[in-house]
Amino acid sequence: MAKPSNREKILTEGLRVVHEHGFAGASVRDIVHAAGVPQGSFTNHFASKEAFGLEVLDLYASRGRAVMGATLRDEALAPLQRLRAYIDARRDRLTQTGIRNGCLYGNFLAEANEHGEAIRRRVAEIFAETREAVAACLRAAVQAGEVPGSLDCNEVAGFVVSSLQGAILVAKAEGSAAPIDRFENILFSRVLR
Amino acid sequence: MAKPSNREKILTEGLRVVHEHGFAGASVRDIVHAAGVPQGSFTNHFASKEAFGLEVLDLYASRGRAVMGATLRDEALAPLQRLRAYIDARRDRLTQTGIRNGCLYGNFLAEANEHGEAIRRRVAEIFAETREAVAACLRAAVQAGEVPGSLDCNEVAGFVVSSLQGAILVAKAEGSAAPIDRFENILFSRVLR
Repeated sequence: MAKPSNREKILTEGLRVVHEHGFAGASVRDIVHAAGVPQGSFTNHFASKEAFGLEVLDLYASRGRAVMGATLRDEALAPLQRLRAYIDARRDRLTQTGIRNGCLYGNFLAEANEHGEAIRRRVAEIFAETREAVAACLRAAVQAGEVPGSLDCNEVAGFVVSSLQGAILVAKAEGSAAPIDRFENILFSRVLR
Repeated sequence: MAKPSNREKILTEGLRVVHEHGFAGASVRDIVHAAGVPQGSFTNHFASKEAFGLEVLDLYASRGRAVMGATLRDEALAPLQRLRAYIDARRDRLTQTGIRNGCLYGNFLAEANEHGEAIRRRVAEIFAETREAVAACLRAAVQAGEVPGSLDCNEVAGFVVSSLQGAILVAKAEGSAAPIDRFENILFSRVLR
C-alpha cells in the first residue's frame, strides 16, 4: 500500500480532530499537528479552511456511503432487515467514534452560519442522498409485502433520516445510545406496520 | 418597566449572537458590541465564557418553558391538541428566529466537546424536562382515550423529543420547515394511533 500523502494525512487526521472539537474549535495548527505534517502543507493543499471542511465532509460521506452499500443496498437481506442493519451500523459507528462526538453532519450544521453556505448545502445534499437510499429500501419493502402499500415511502424516508439524526443528537447529550434504540423500536413497531 | 441592566442586555443580545454564530463563533467582543456595553462589563458579570453560556442556555430554556406552559400544559385543550400545539409553536419559533439558526440546544451540543461537560449536562437536563412534559401529556391522552393504553408514554415521549430535534436540524440544513411538518404528520397518523 502506498504511503499516505500529506494531503491524505491532513484529511484523515483532520476529520478526527474536527469530529472531536467542532469545525470552529479545530485550528489549522491542531490539524497539522495531529497529521504530523508542516503547517505550510495545509495551505499547499487547501485553498481555505472552508475548502478543507468540504473535503472532510466528503471523506465522512464516503464512509457513510460504504455503510449504506453494506446495509440499505445489501440485496441478500430482506428490505426491512436492510433498514435495521443500517440503523444498527450508524449506532455502532457512533459508539466506536465516541458517542460524545455525535454525528459530523449535525456538528457541521450546528455551526453552519459560521462557515458559510457551501458546507450547509453539502450537508443537505448528503441528507437527500441518504433519504433516497432509505426510500428505495422502503419501496422494496412495499413490493415484498413487508409494509402496507399505503406507506408514503418518500415521506417516511425523510422522517427516518431526520429522526435518526435527532436520536444521535440526544445520544450525544446523554452519552448513551439508548435514544437510537428507542427510535429503532418505535420505527419498526409503530411506523412501519 | 425598569431599564434592562447591562447583565440583562448581555444575556439577551448574547443569546441572539450565539444563536446566529454558534458559541465558539461568538466572541466576547461581538457580544458586548451587540449589547452596547463596555467590554469590562462582561467580565464583571460572568466568571467565564462557559458561565455565560450556561446562563444563555437557561434564558433560552425559560422561553422554552413558557412555550411548554402555553401548549403541553394548557388544560383547555385536549391532550393530543396540546402536543400538536407544542410542535407547531416550536416550528413557529424556529421560523421567527430564522430556520438557518436552528435550535440553540442542538447548536450548543454540536460544539459540546469544546466548551465542557457542564453545558452538555445542562442540555441533557433540558431534554429530560421536555420529555417529562411530553410524557405527562401522553398519559393524559391515554386517560382521555385518545391513544391506546398500550402506548409506552415514556418511550414515545423520548422519541418525540429526539425526532423533533432531528427535524429541526434537517430544517436548518434545508432552510425549510417541511421536515417538521413531516414529523408531525407521521407522529399523529402512524405513531399515536
